[in-house]
Amino acid sequence: VKHPVVTLTTDFGTSDHYVAAMKGVILGICPGAALVDISHTIPPYSILDAAWVIGQAWRSFPRGTVHLIVVDPGVGSERRALVAEVEGYRFVAPDNGVLTMVLDAAKSSRVRQIAIATYFRRPVSQTFHGRDIFAPVAARVAAGLAASRLGPLIEDAVRLPTGSPRQTGQSTWEGTVLHVDQFGNVVTNFSLAEWPGLDTKPFRLKHSKINISQAASTYAAMIPGKLCLISGSSGYWEVSCNQQDAGKILCAKAGHPLKLRLLPK
Amino acid sequence: VKHPVVTLTTDFGTSDHYVAAMKGVILGICPGAALVDISHTIPPYSILDAAWVIGQAWRSFPRGTVHLIVVDPGVGSERRALVAEVEGYRFVAPDNGVLTMVLDAAKSSRVRQIAIATYFRRPVSQTFHGRDIFAPVAARVAAGLAASRLGPLIEDAVRLPTGSPRQTGQSTWEGTVLHVDQFGNVVTNFSLAEWPGLDTKPFRLKHSKINISQAASTYAAMIPGKLCLISGSSGYWEVSCNQQDAGKILCAKAGHPLKLRLLPK
Amino acid sequence: VKHPVVTLTTDFGTSDHYVAAMKGVILGICPGAALVDISHTIPPYSILDAAWVIGQAWRSFPRGTVHLIVVDPGVGSERRALVAEVEGYRFVAPDNGVLTMVLDAAKSSRVRQIAIATYFRRPVSQTFHGRDIFAPVAARVAAGLAASRLGPLIEDAVRLPTGSPRQTGQSTWEGTVLHVDQFGNVVTNFSLAEWPGLDTKPFRLKHSKINISQAASTYAAMIPGKLCLISGSSGYWEVSCNQQDAGKILCAKAGHPLKLRLLPK
Repeated sequence: VKHPVVTLTTDFGTSDHYVAAMKGVILGICPGAALVDISHTIPPYSILDAAWVIGQAWRSFPRGTVHLIVVDPGVGSERRALVAEVEGYRFVAPDNGVLTMVLDAAKSSRVRQIAIATYFRRPVSQTFHGRDIFAPVAARVAAGLAASRLGPLIEDAVRLPTGSPRQTGQSTWEGTVLHVDQFGNVVTNFSLAEWPGLDTKPFRLKHSKINISQAASTYAAMIPGKLCLISGSSGYWEVSCNQQDAGKILCAKAGHPLKLRLLPK
Repeated sequence: VKHPVVTLTTDFGTSDHYVAAMKGVILGICPGAALVDISHTIPPYSILDAAWVIGQAWRSFPRGTVHLIVVDPGVGSERRALVAEVEGYRFVAPDNGVLTMVLDAAKSSRVRQIAIATYFRRPVSQTFHGRDIFAPVAARVAAGLAASRLGPLIEDAVRLPTGSPRQTGQSTWEGTVLHVDQFGNVVTNFSLAEWPGLDTKPFRLKHSKINISQAASTYAAMIPGKLCLISGSSGYWEVSCNQQDAGKILCAKAGHPLKLRLLPK
Repeated sequence: VKHPVVTLTTDFGTSDHYVAAMKGVILGICPGAALVDISHTIPPYSILDAAWVIGQAWRSFPRGTVHLIVVDPGVGSERRALVAEVEGYRFVAPDNGVLTMVLDAAKSSRVRQIAIATYFRRPVSQTFHGRDIFAPVAARVAAGLAASRLGPLIEDAVRLPTGSPRQTGQSTWEGTVLHVDQFGNVVTNFSLAEWPGLDTKPFRLKHSKINISQAASTYAAMIPGKLCLISGSSGYWEVSCNQQDAGKILCAKAGHPLKLRLLPK
């Protein structure tokens, strides 16, 4: 590949030198790499948020892209390091569940434990495997190293429980909030694929004590100030409010329960 | 072009995957592109702030650069999408006024409505035209597609009212605050071009109840703690305070009125 | 060099167009440059923080990298501008001490005053030398210009007092906090090189009224909630707390004193 792409997702923030140190290591090994930040403001140690962000971003990149994820509360412990091949993409990450949404969505995948230390930066610090292990391995893979050279296939990579909505009655389901984004869009775990046309049926979606019973096809079509269900770019039904912050209005956070009732027409 | 530059200006923030998704789409279409972030912390939906930021940045880049601006409260509505050619630069943006300061400053420009959907990403979501329309079109333009292939010339692109200072008496003018930057520099709409040598004349500039009557040629030359007028890098007279935040001292915000009086020598 | 790397360290923040303007200038002069942000959230005017961040980051990059640092409270005054060659790396920065930790750590270095204005952007503003002087000079150097073409060698570049721990008794020393990072890791000025095996001896490290007397080899090995000494990736002993913010627990800030006592075994 002439211009291999390497993306970075961490909880390192951008004030310190940590992200830059990883980029320096990558460019030393793979000089033509195009480096793209996905997010460095994953809440510290939040594997679930990292899993969401990479799960949303990976397929927007060209095949061959190496996605490097370092949200790693277990750094220095015995947790494994992984390299995964998924539909032509490669992932380098700790084995703690950050790849859950990628692997759940994948048609096929091959996950390996990184068992060969040949490509690590020396000396390996106890506290910064992002720079010393994950970045150099990702750079080698971007530069053409076959994943099979790094270690054996495994079948038991850590997966987080994500969960689909659960039917609780004849026309009622309980789901959860997957994510609240920067604009306050509240992403539910009711997927567009499994709930097609939800916006065309009478429904009531409840978060805490607030009901949402309207849907809209665009933000601009929403009555200002009105919470609406909308078919989001995330692949899930989202609750939004035109030019306002639905997340704040609802006080919604990832993990909160949602109740859906389909109403008779 | 061997290394086409594509810049990005959005109100998406950098916590979510939205900016990265746009970059992934661009690199899939134009693999050698050099991607440069201008700002992703435009206040949500603030077309005026986006217009200011791109208006300040565009000419620092090499000719041929494609400037992509996605601050788009009207996403999904009938608002048009634009591609503009200005002095060798190209702009891809929604037609909502974000190009106002670029077009106001340009010696000449050609603005087109994007009318051909050939280059859009499929399917086009209702809520994320940045990824599905603007990014792929910008990438095609960066990769060499002629703007003329995208749609017809238009003459009525949306422009925001920006306004020059207004004379209110024989030696008095009313202007406004255009922008307060990260350091607290307060940019006025008294331009260096139309007000040359303002710092060499006796003057009084008033914001709310505070008067500024001193000028300085450098920050280092300012008396610490003293508000001074200075010839800013923005092309406008600015009010600054050496190593302090003039914006906070004045409680100044974009849009606030300013009164200038030229005094007898 | 085919893909010259230019890094940027500033206190400009990322909301305004300032960083992007510098990047545009660099790409106009050195089109193939790989631009890497180190940090743009150095506290405004904090030369010490900038010195720390570049001091930590520079060696992670490939030799030949040009490190551009613009934290420049003296912009527009008579302070000198520097180009330094250190172990194959190049640095472009104001002469105010930001290179202190790089020069302190270097085996050898050659520092020059930038005396030739040939490569500056015209006109040079009074307030934005980052765009008009430092960025174009850094880009020329990245594109192959010899540093010797820019001005004479100097021996008196400004250095900040950094200081090593001071012995205050037979088994007591006084040191300081060098830095508190985004995770709350508290970096001391007890270096790993001069204090090897500190974690294997009985010790008491005191910050204000809190004592730290435990050490750990990894974050994962720490008892949750317990402050521990750990061999940090920075090259110094650090005080950390597994998945908690040691900096907040200690209310520690850069410059705070630390007292170390070695205890009898």
